[in-house]
Amino acid sequence: MRQGNARRRILLKMMHRGRIRYLAQELRRRSIPSLLVTHLPDVRYLTGFTGSNAALVVVAEPRLTSRLFTDGRYTVQAKREVQGASVRIAPKSAVVEACTWAEQHAPQCGFDRTQTSVASLAAMKKAAGKRGFFVPADGLVAALRVIKDATEVESMRRAASLTCSLYEGLLGWIEPGMRERDIAAELEHRARMAGAESMSFETIVAAGERSSQPHARTTEARIEPGDLVTLDFGIVVDGYCSDMTRTFAIGYGEKSVPSRLKQRWTEQRDVFEAVLAAQQAAVNAVHEGVTCGEVDLAARSVLEAVGYGKYFTHSTGHGVGLEIHEVPRVGKDSKDVLKAGTVITIEPGVYLPGRFGVRIEDSVLVTEDGAEVLTPVHKGWMEL
Amino acid sequence: MRQGNARRRILLKMMHRGRIRYLAQELRRRSIPSLLVTHLPDVRYLTGFTGSNAALVVVAEPRLTSRLFTDGRYTVQAKREVQGASVRIAPKSAVVEACTWAEQHAPQCGFDRTQTSVASLAAMKKAAGKRGFFVPADGLVAALRVIKDATEVESMRRAASLTCSLYEGLLGWIEPGMRERDIAAELEHRARMAGAESMSFETIVAAGERSSQPHARTTEARIEPGDLVTLDFGIVVDGYCSDMTRTFAIGYGEKSVPSRLKQRWTEQRDVFEAVLAAQQAAVNAVHEGVTCGEVDLAARSVLEAVGYGKYFTHSTGHGVGLEIHEVPRVGKDSKDVLKAGTVITIEPGVYLPGRFGVRIEDSVLVTEDGAEVLTPVHKGWMEL
Repeated sequence: MRQGNARRRILLKMMHRGRIRYLAQELRRRSIPSLLVTHLPDVRYLTGFTGSNAALVVVAEPRLTSRLFTDGRYTVQAKREVQGASVRIAPKSAVVEACTWAEQHAPQCGFDRTQTSVASLAAMKKAAGKRGFFVPADGLVAALRVIKDATEVESMRRAASLTCSLYEGLLGWIEPGMRERDIAAELEHRARMAGAESMSFETIVAAGERSSQPHARTTEARIEPGDLVTLDFGIVVDGYCSDMTRTFAIGYGEKSVPSRLKQRWTEQRDVFEAVLAAQQAAVNAVHEGVTCGEVDLAARSVLEAVGYGKYFTHSTGHGVGLEIHEVPRVGKDSKDVLKAGTVITIEPGVYLPGRFGVRIEDSVLVTEDGAEVLTPVHKGWMEL
Repeated sequence: MRQGNARRRILLKMMHRGRIRYLAQELRRRSIPSLLVTHLPDVRYLTGFTGSNAALVVVAEPRLTSRLFTDGRYTVQAKREVQGASVRIAPKSAVVEACTWAEQHAPQCGFDRTQTSVASLAAMKKAAGKRGFFVPADGLVAALRVIKDATEVESMRRAASLTCSLYEGLLGWIEPGMRERDIAAELEHRARMAGAESMSFETIVAAGERSSQPHARTTEARIEPGDLVTLDFGIVVDGYCSDMTRTFAIGYGEKSVPSRLKQRWTEQRDVFEAVLAAQQAAVNAVHEGVTCGEVDLAARSVLEAVGYGKYFTHSTGHGVGLEIHEVPRVGKDSKDVLKAGTVITIEPGVYLPGRFGVRIEDSVLVTEDGAEVLTPVHKGWMEL
């Protein structure tokens, strides 16, 4: 356990209560008497509950306490974790009991259409048994989550900082001839031992031709001299995800590039420097008030100017937090306006099909006048 | 790479084509001209595609080829992986393009209400632009997936067998004083190095009081002499999940139990033997034609008979395959009838709040006249 954990727990407690209160206020402002929250990261954000089954009813009326429904597996855990809501262990379905309770305590209930399946909505309506009880209320919790508060930023800084340390440590260990999966296994073991709760997504180690697939799966293939290696990984700290990508060359030798590899080396460097310039341009474009489309364009236009535009086959980035992919999407033509306190990734890439690829990614915190790079570890050309 | 991989790839190719054909036949039988499949494990099952964004339209008409839509990140991968469907890289939304294409090639399109959000359905309707185009068609792919074919059973056997070996290897390594997370990190590293693609869920290592939480998170706490340790983990092989739980005692000493721990030891053994008997009773109850409720009752009644019924706070098990939780739910009063070829977990547990808990879990393959235990590694009382 780290020092200061007791203080941290108290802060978290206040945070969760504050978040539910803030949401209740928002519900009153919109004249929505209650809100059913079933998306688990939303439930965690609002109450601190980390179990795998929960339905939360947040009530607008300040004199009523919001209520979280879960099942018998989480009796002890819910009691310990949940803040700002009372807990009810539902013998059957948590969602069904939540709807029944909501119907008894509020005239209407909002729900998020993006987080509710067509089948769930039918079951919810049946449980509440009142026509017009459920009303669409999309993205209310997402709108809170998109701006990270001080506690969240602290967790994300810790996750990002550990990510950088892990990367630096790994560089001294990687050698030609290792398999992609050896590197992933070593990295994940080090991450765990250093205190990561888990990886935030399946680690990508893609060498040589496989680096030309943006979302390559880590294989048992060995890294050959002259390969580019793309390493895309993240860890979870306090529930918050980090996300970083670096691409480096391996095995060119200590002194000079062998003549048979010279042409490949030149091409790799050319692509690499273009991606790096695009990535830096996008980071530089970030500040409160800019649209995500403008940030995307900053990276895209650099690559288009040097003829690599058509090989940049994905968006520039995405929001990150309790989930690895959150709003906003930092993509072409996106009109979403960045706000201070949002954390996004900036990760342009160029992928020459069947040959090689380069991606460079940082997680950045949007500020009033710029971006704080949370993953400020070496990202220039490097040969191991 | 393993021997026989080339043969395996050919078999898989035939499998995927066969699955899509079988589904198309099913659609014709139900007079559904096409089906939109967006749940990624369903897409993988039908086509072999493992990317993170896909919408598949399966057409009933045998002369038409089904079509998979994904994005530019997966150009190379989709070409290599997808079987039985043509591939289209959608510049914008894969689902939107899938709906537009479906509308041009079929008079109606089925969709799964349990896998489609209310918001997605609205977008789908808008893209197709034709009233009554989408019709509910729930669980069609799930109904195929619930019965594992020979290729799937082979993958699940390999995953389960590796799970058993990893467990046995770990037993010789665990010692009192280790932290829960040390054990999880070591296990996960060994799993990776032995060829697991990933863990099938967050590894649970819960010692002492934490074992009384059925879904405890692995912490930094150290294992004390006299603790029970619950180890619940699974790995992924060829995309298929294994799932196994063992509970063992640690640090009681080689010769005899110290007198100060004698009472705890007796209670632990008492609970342990009850859970083991319940687990075995449920395994014995499994065969084609029995309901899931009967299997659950077999375990539950053993625990109720000895007074532990109220501490068994969850279902007896669940289906497992490409996903860690699949149909059927092996729970109280479930009327689902087990079929040969289904793989389910059998995992009763007893949790004494704030004290300790015991859970024992096997994955079993349902057969015509019984159950094949896929995880036949020692599950009796053990003191390390």
